[in-house]
Amino acid sequence: MPTNRQILLDNRPVGEATAANFKLVSNDTPALADGQVLVRHHYLSLDPYMRGRMNDSKSYAASQPVGEVFQGGTVGEVVESRHPKYAAGDKVAGFGGWQEYSVVDAGQPGMLKKVDTTHVPLSHYLGAVGMPGVTAWYGLVKIIAPKEGETVVVSAAAGAVGSIVGQIAKIKGCRVVGLAGSDDKCRWVVDDLGFDACINYRKENVLEALRRECPKGIDVYFENVGGEILDAVLTLINLEARIPLCGLISTYNADGPVPGPYMFRNVLMKRALIKGFIVIDYFPRIGEFMQDMPGWIASGKVKWRVDVEQGLENAPTALQKLFTGGNTGKLVVQISPEP
Amino acid sequence: MPTNRQILLDNRPVGEATAANFKLVSNDTPALADGQVLVRHHYLSLDPYMRGRMNDSKSYAASQPVGEVFQGGTVGEVVESRHPKYAAGDKVAGFGGWQEYSVVDAGQPGMLKKVDTTHVPLSHYLGAVGMPGVTAWYGLVKIIAPKEGETVVVSAAAGAVGSIVGQIAKIKGCRVVGLAGSDDKCRWVVDDLGFDACINYRKENVLEALRRECPKGIDVYFENVGGEILDAVLTLINLEARIPLCGLISTYNADGPVPGPYMFRNVLMKRALIKGFIVIDYFPRIGEFMQDMPGWIASGKVKWRVDVEQGLENAPTALQKLFTGGNTGKLVVQISPEP
Repeated sequence: MPTNRQILLDNRPVGEATAANFKLVSNDTPALADGQVLVRHHYLSLDPYMRGRMNDSKSYAASQPVGEVFQGGTVGEVVESRHPKYAAGDKVAGFGGWQEYSVVDAGQPGMLKKVDTTHVPLSHYLGAVGMPGVTAWYGLVKIIAPKEGETVVVSAAAGAVGSIVGQIAKIKGCRVVGLAGSDDKCRWVVDDLGFDACINYRKENVLEALRRECPKGIDVYFENVGGEILDAVLTLINLEARIPLCGLISTYNADGPVPGPYMFRNVLMKRALIKGFIVIDYFPRIGEFMQDMPGWIASGKVKWRVDVEQGLENAPTALQKLFTGGNTGKLVVQISPEP
Repeated sequence: MPTNRQILLDNRPVGEATAANFKLVSNDTPALADGQVLVRHHYLSLDPYMRGRMNDSKSYAASQPVGEVFQGGTVGEVVESRHPKYAAGDKVAGFGGWQEYSVVDAGQPGMLKKVDTTHVPLSHYLGAVGMPGVTAWYGLVKIIAPKEGETVVVSAAAGAVGSIVGQIAKIKGCRVVGLAGSDDKCRWVVDDLGFDACINYRKENVLEALRRECPKGIDVYFENVGGEILDAVLTLINLEARIPLCGLISTYNADGPVPGPYMFRNVLMKRALIKGFIVIDYFPRIGEFMQDMPGWIASGKVKWRVDVEQGLENAPTALQKLFTGGNTGKLVVQISPEP
């Protein structure tokens, strides 16, 4: 069995998460038992939710244990199988963590999924046709169901979830306004993804810019970030506005209580709806999503960018890009050449 | 025509609203035109929403104009009618404002409603079978629909809306925990209204007390107040908790931005729902409410207390009781003896 380089969570961050919270080790890969498969990882998924799991306190799920392999989504290839449904060479998506190889009990539900890379590249199964894609799809289509002509605002518009939310909203006939952290990101969002407008929140007064770009007010706000942007949006929402709450990334590194939106009273005044949601609740309905999205991606109807960092040892540093706005599109780490 | 004493909004408050913001004047009552009726008011309704309308900025509705009669709900008796549907002696509810008499265009929809005082006292049409009752009913029954066995927390539990919310939730089979600002109020809420528990938020640590009284967590929180209580509740909500947002009275006197809930991220973590609502949206469906509530009140199934202040000139001072927690039950001002 091959040697397996692994990154462990070494200690919990106080405030900002850094590379010093992680440790690189090497271990032998254990021999396979019946029903297990050995997967070689090609890409690791880097996602905002990981910051919450580095804390001691429970967030969505149990805390990531210190001293264990850092957990996260992976795509790769089966290199050895003792499970009848899998064979060497199968491309698979799973939750293998930050390591070169994982040994998976392939019979347990949800542990491993064979993927078809004929029309969709392997890494996309961590993004557009993976967890962020499902997140965008369910939040927008199933929870909010925007109507033609409504104005939809999307924060983190150049991110994995936001870039898809906006494109689906365009397919649904909405006016779509994104928010992103650089002129380059905004150009990509408007010119390539087809948003109607994109506001560089680092350069412009967000409230004024939203007022300009949303002349009919805001009907839907797909919330990925929290903080000041949420406040500006709440100032401009229309009656019966809907806000799916998908993430609050601007607050995840905070070392103490963060005030909620100062314009919270507008939720009352405008009879708005805020609904927290988490994609894992919708995994049982992933079939509905897979009817549309792979085709949209393959045909180019939905465009998709992967931001690829190289090398397992660089994953801890790469993770910081999510919180500084360093990535455009879905952030992944390639840890072995695509087969 | 009789002389009409009136209270005008004289100037807009900065921070706390006081009697100095109002002015008492006397004017002649104009002669009736065709289609008009003259109503003598017996009770004025004092309500939390009034504070928002004293500001220059729009809240639910247009701002209350300075120099005009202060607007608000009223119940009284027709003393003269030039409308075929109304006759002298009819008991009516309307929106006559802080004055002894109002001249009403009775043909316009929603201006005036005849009420039946055979089994339900006149003043109750400002409360249990009026706007606060409809608010409680729709927020709980139609928007949230709590299930048997769920834990429902109600803030301002001794207030006009909260006292009814809790009693309806008990009828629906829930565990009901109230929050109120004095031991007397809490005793009334538990002993007379039948809540399972009531927390005096001025005396106890709210988070600890809620933890004790809600051993299975919080499924529904009927929000009337905002501020620290909302934060404590958000700390203890269960997955898929629902929070109808009816009022944020603790923040209405604030002279500047108020931070939203510090535990806002729990809306995301717990996939909770927050829904602002305003009773005026539901007035077209008031018939459904009137099928249940008058009978519940008449039979004593829902108990109801009216906190009566005397004299038109005392309305401005009485209004402050809403914001200092001075009232128990529905606050009204009696301005002429009941006929």
